[in-house]
Amino acid sequence: MFFEGAEKKLELQLKSAAASLRQLPQPFWAEFVACANAEILSHIHNDFCDAYLLSESSLFVWDDRLLLLTCGNSTLVTAATWVIENLAVDDIASLRYQRKNEYQAQLQASTFADDISQLRHYLPGLAYRLGHLDLHHHYFFFAEHAKVSCDSRFELLMYHIRGELADYLNTVLQTEEGILKRLQFNELFNDFQIDSHRFSPFGFSLNALRGLDYVSLHITPQGSHGDNCSYVSFETNLTCPSTRMTLLAWLVTLFSPSAWDLIEINLPALAVNLPQYGCLSQSAMTTEFGTAIGFRQFQQSDTETLIPQLL
Amino acid sequence: MFFEGAEKKLELQLKSAAASLRQLPQPFWAEFVACANAEILSHIHNDFCDAYLLSESSLFVWDDRLLLLTCGNSTLVTAATWVIENLAVDDIASLRYQRKNEYQAQLQASTFADDISQLRHYLPGLAYRLGHLDLHHHYFFFAEHAKVSCDSRFELLMYHIRGELADYLNTVLQTEEGILKRLQFNELFNDFQIDSHRFSPFGFSLNALRGLDYVSLHITPQGSHGDNCSYVSFETNLTCPSTRMTLLAWLVTLFSPSAWDLIEINLPALAVNLPQYGCLSQSAMTTEFGTAIGFRQFQQSDTETLIPQLL
Repeated sequence: MFFEGAEKKLELQLKSAAASLRQLPQPFWAEFVACANAEILSHIHNDFCDAYLLSESSLFVWDDRLLLLTCGNSTLVTAATWVIENLAVDDIASLRYQRKNEYQAQLQASTFADDISQLRHYLPGLAYRLGHLDLHHHYFFFAEHAKVSCDSRFELLMYHIRGELADYLNTVLQTEEGILKRLQFNELFNDFQIDSHRFSPFGFSLNALRGLDYVSLHITPQGSHGDNCSYVSFETNLTCPSTRMTLLAWLVTLFSPSAWDLIEINLPALAVNLPQYGCLSQSAMTTEFGTAIGFRQFQQSDTETLIPQLL
Repeated sequence: MFFEGAEKKLELQLKSAAASLRQLPQPFWAEFVACANAEILSHIHNDFCDAYLLSESSLFVWDDRLLLLTCGNSTLVTAATWVIENLAVDDIASLRYQRKNEYQAQLQASTFADDISQLRHYLPGLAYRLGHLDLHHHYFFFAEHAKVSCDSRFELLMYHIRGELADYLNTVLQTEEGILKRLQFNELFNDFQIDSHRFSPFGFSLNALRGLDYVSLHITPQGSHGDNCSYVSFETNLTCPSTRMTLLAWLVTLFSPSAWDLIEINLPALAVNLPQYGCLSQSAMTTEFGTAIGFRQFQQSDTETLIPQLL
């Protein structure tokens, strides 16, 4: 039943003089994601972006940058080195590589330390950990070599989901339409193009596009009863604070996680006011080229009673 | 600088008809702990117990049972299988094997799953995890084959120690006498025999005995500033609730950890009232032969601000 929902992330920005990434043919991207042990399931696009839904999360390609998220036991660093080799290294303005602590790190093909030692063969950069090793923590590698456009990202990562939707996502009765209806994304993102996929037996992914804006949601619902290793990630580059707060409150209410992390890239810290959760820890930093990263871990305020897990 | 403070624990109880473990000569115990990559540093004893201070934690030997704690990258399971092979398996009433989540699990020689698959070659038993995988969690393996004496244990495991003592323990100025004076164990345990050892450059261990009662304290203070992976464990078989509450309050005040776990074996849950800490999660179970295990994770109530760690 176990599936590692936590994503690894690769973000690449090109210098302004470089050729558009969107001119590269789809087989290029298929080979790229195959390096991470993922495959393309479906695809939407608009004038600014190509959004691919993958067997392991998502790929977004804009003219001057790309964002690849892969979950499970994917080998994202292999995709990263492949794409560096297949683009002109001198065209790369910035590469960011990000991993969060996994539920079961020992099942991964590599550690973050292994990954960055591979990346450093191509690009020098600095690596950081935000968060204590014994709680939620996030690793970032920054190989930034030029000022890049101020791309923002808002990440909400939810753990141990509970309640009606969590239960529904663990039944055989679930349908893609049923999940979409419960998410209410058609109302929340009514002017977005939406692409979604329900995995069998469990799991759900969604990409959405509107102009330069994107939304990505990935649900690993496994084990909502008793002990559970469920995980839901939501991310967007929408920057409006009230929109972010509305989305955060809606998703936290809907999934009722016992814990969640906020990662804010190039965004002021959202004033969070959800009294049933407390902020355990916070950490923030700014890179040499001005990329600002904020990380906060929230935990339900009431003591959680856990059922011992027979192994 | 990094040292894994978290202990693995082996507890073995013999049937009442078995020969006393204390009749076995010291070379037997030296070979036993060597299997775990530890060595005996010093030794105290009384009419009931032999207490060995080790290069990696402690060994206690009573007539009918033993308790071995080993920290770092020790291979406790090898010591466990060695001692099973070198005692009569039929004399073993109960074997308990316990591991907690490590700060850096990938540096360990084996996982808990590896360990219990070795132990099950000798003794059938059930294994459990208490606590979510993404927070503090503890693994227990129980191979209980007869009712045993109701041995109690109170474990306080502290993370990210701070303050004056934490600072002192990270200086080159520290002395064994200076540590003992700050701990005030001579007053708290004034009728106990005490054996202690200061490790170079950092670290401190202490065993104490009084009749059948024991106390064990192990300090891994490394990195008390900014990001830190410090760890302090305290355990005892003293059962009086007011004594336990006094010790808990004293140690938590002294070390000012940002988080701590309580493990209570065959003890009613202590009513903890330390308003600067909240209980994140709790879990409890009782085995077929009546061994009761309680686990609680406490965290400082205020949001902790963490300095990003350059890797």
